Amino acid sequence: MNIVLLDARQTQSALWSITSKRQIEHLKTHVDIQVGDTLRVGIREAKRYLTEIVSISEHAIQIKPIQEESVPTKLPVTLIVALPRPKVLRRLIMDSVTLGVNKIILIHSYRVDKSYWQSPFLQQLEHYVTLGLEQAGDTVAPKIEVYKRFKPFVEDILPTLISAEQPAYVAHPYVEQSMPSGINHPCSIVIGPEGGFIPYEIDLLIKNGCHALSLGNRIIRTETVIPYVLGRLFSTC
Amino acid sequence: MNIVLLDARQTQSALWSITSKRQIEHLKTHVDIQVGDTLRVGIREAKRYLTEIVSISEHAIQIKPIQEESVPTKLPVTLIVALPRPKVLRRLIMDSVTLGVNKIILIHSYRVDKSYWQSPFLQQLEHYVTLGLEQAGDTVAPKIEVYKRFKPFVEDILPTLISAEQPAYVAHPYVEQSMPSGINHPCSIVIGPEGGFIPYEIDLLIKNGCHALSLGNRIIRTETVIPYVLGRLFSTC
Repeated sequence: MNIVLLDARQTQSALWSITSKRQIEHLKTHVDIQVGDTLRVGIREAKRYLTEIVSISEHAIQIKPIQEESVPTKLPVTLIVALPRPKVLRRLIMDSVTLGVNKIILIHSYRVDKSYWQSPFLQQLEHYVTLGLEQAGDTVAPKIEVYKRFKPFVEDILPTLISAEQPAYVAHPYVEQSMPSGINHPCSIVIGPEGGFIPYEIDLLIKNGCHALSLGNRIIRTETVIPYVLGRLFSTC
Repeated sequence: MNIVLLDARQTQSALWSITSKRQIEHLKTHVDIQVGDTLRVGIREAKRYLTEIVSISEHAIQIKPIQEESVPTKLPVTLIVALPRPKVLRRLIMDSVTLGVNKIILIHSYRVDKSYWQSPFLQQLEHYVTLGLEQAGDTVAPKIEVYKRFKPFVEDILPTLISAEQPAYVAHPYVEQSMPSGINHPCSIVIGPEGGFIPYEIDLLIKNGCHALSLGNRIIRTETVIPYVLGRLFSTC
C-alpha cells in the first residue's frame, strides 16, 4: 500500500478520515504511523495528496492535506484475457491495475474451465482493483468488462475496439512475426487461457482484425506474460 | 508443465522412463495422456525431444524419442534481487527461470526481514527452478548465488559483473533517466526489497558501477517488476 485510497465523501471537511479497518490495520502494523507523519492519500477517480496525520484512534485516523501530487498516467491499452483460474485472476487484476492498464476485458474461451465463471472472486474484483491502485499510487480504476461468450465478443465487440491507430495483438506461439516493442500508440492485447486458444479461436480473432504475434519460444504463464508484454510494448515512459 | 524434465540417467536405454510421482500425476490428471500420444521431454542441461508414449503404469511412463527440438536461448541477464518474502521468492524463481534469466543472485539489504533467510524455500530453490524450466520448455538451469551481506557483495562481487559491454542497472523511482528498452547486449539488473533500497545502499550501488534508472512513477511489486523489466529490456527476440 503506497497510498491510502479514500472515497470523496471521506474528504468533505477540513480534516479527512481514514475509517476502513483494512487500511487502519495496515498503517498501524506495517507502516507504524505516528501523529505528525506524512501520508500519501488518493481520492477515488480524483486527485492525490501528501497529507499529515493529525490524530490516530482505534476506529479512525484523521489527516489534513498538505499538497497535491500528480496521479500516474495510464497505459493506452485494453487487455483482453481469457478468464483464468480464480487465484490467477486476483493477481492479474492487481498487476494490471498496478501497471496502469486502462481497460480490462475478461472473456470466455474453449479452454476456460466453466467453473471459473462461478468464482466468488469475480464479485470481488473491485477489492483487487483497490489493492492495485494503492500499490501503484493511482486513483483511477480501469474499466472492467466481462463477456461470457467468445464468438459474439470477437465478432461484435472486438472490431469496435480496433482501428488503424489502435491495432489488436494476440500473443500466439506458432507465428513468425514478433510482438512489437516500444510502441507509442494505443492498442489491445489478447491473452489466451492456460493451454492457449484453440485454432478455431485464433482464426476467428485474426478474421476479426487481430494480428497474431509471437513472444518468442518460451511458454509463459498468463500472470507472468501480462507484465512481460506490457513492459515490452510500452517502454517509452 | 509444457515439457517433462528428466535426468540424463533416465534416458540411457532405448526407452526412457518417467518415474517422478509429481510428473506422473500431472500427466495423468491434467494432460490425460494415452499410449501413442506425443510428449515433449527435456534432458537436464542437455537437449529437448518430441517423444511418443509407449506404456503407462502406476509408477512409470515409458517413452521413446522421435525427434530433437531446439532449446530456447537464455536472456543475457544477471538478475540481482534483494531476498523477498518466501512466497514471493518462489514465484520470482519460477518466473525468472521461465523467462530465461541466465543467472540469479539473491542478496541481503536493510529492508530484507532477517527471518526470510531462515525460510525453508531457500533450500528448495531447485524444485522451483524445475517448475520454471518445465513451464518454459527449457532444460538448462540458471546459476543461483546467494550473498547474505550487502556491502561485501556490492564492493567485491558486483564490480566483477560490470563492464562497458555489460552494464548494471538498478531500478530506482527517484531518478530522471529511464530504464532503456530493446537492448541487445548483456546486463545486470538490480531489484530492491519491498520499500526499496535505503539511500546508503543506492549510493553504494552507484559508487560501484550501477546506473540508477527509473521505470516510471508507478510503484510495482518485486514479483511483477521482474517480468515487466525483462520485457522492456529484451524485446528483440
